[in-house]
Amino acid sequence: MATETLSGQSEKAYALLKEDAQKILNLIEVQMTNLTMPQCPLYEEVLDTQMFGLSREIDFAIRLNLIREEEGKQLLGQLEQQLSALHEACMREEGK
Amino acid sequence: MATETLSGQSEKAYALLKEDAQKILNLIEVQMTNLTMPQCPLYEEVLDTQMFGLSREIDFAIRLNLIREEEGKQLLGQLEQQLSALHEACMREEGK
Repeated sequence: MATETLSGQSEKAYALLKEDAQKILNLIEVQMTNLTMPQCPLYEEVLDTQMFGLSREIDFAIRLNLIREEEGKQLLGQLEQQLSALHEACMREEGK
Repeated sequence: MATETLSGQSEKAYALLKEDAQKILNLIEVQMTNLTMPQCPLYEEVLDTQMFGLSREIDFAIRLNLIREEEGKQLLGQLEQQLSALHEACMREEGK
């Protein structure tokens, strides 16, 4: 029973972290799409702060044994890859 | 049993958050004490980022029902008060 409840908490924690990663991706995508400036937005500052916030959440979940360290690294790594793909697409668009 | 385990998690979550708040306070204190510049350090940027990180952790703990919203607000509020007292002490020191 206790194990079940804790594993439920783990699943919820992981789902929340994935949601938060997706929100960061959406935020950056919206920024890139809606800015009318010819160059890519200087989004680094927003991004750094958001990534720092997510990494604090992930670290907190690891310390509570809700997710494994490996899962946390994977979550951050995936998001970094998606953001970098988005950034490259934006740079290509700009180069046209 | 399940309830006990969850309440154990809550206590741990709250203790971790208090620890993290204390770390921010220590970080800012060290910055203020060790900088040899005559004026108070421009610590706002560091502070904003750290406070954002802590508020993400607190929000995450609330969404997992590990702490109550009220407790989260209290934690942030206390830290803000302590930081502001520290800042005032520093300004007085500077004014001498």
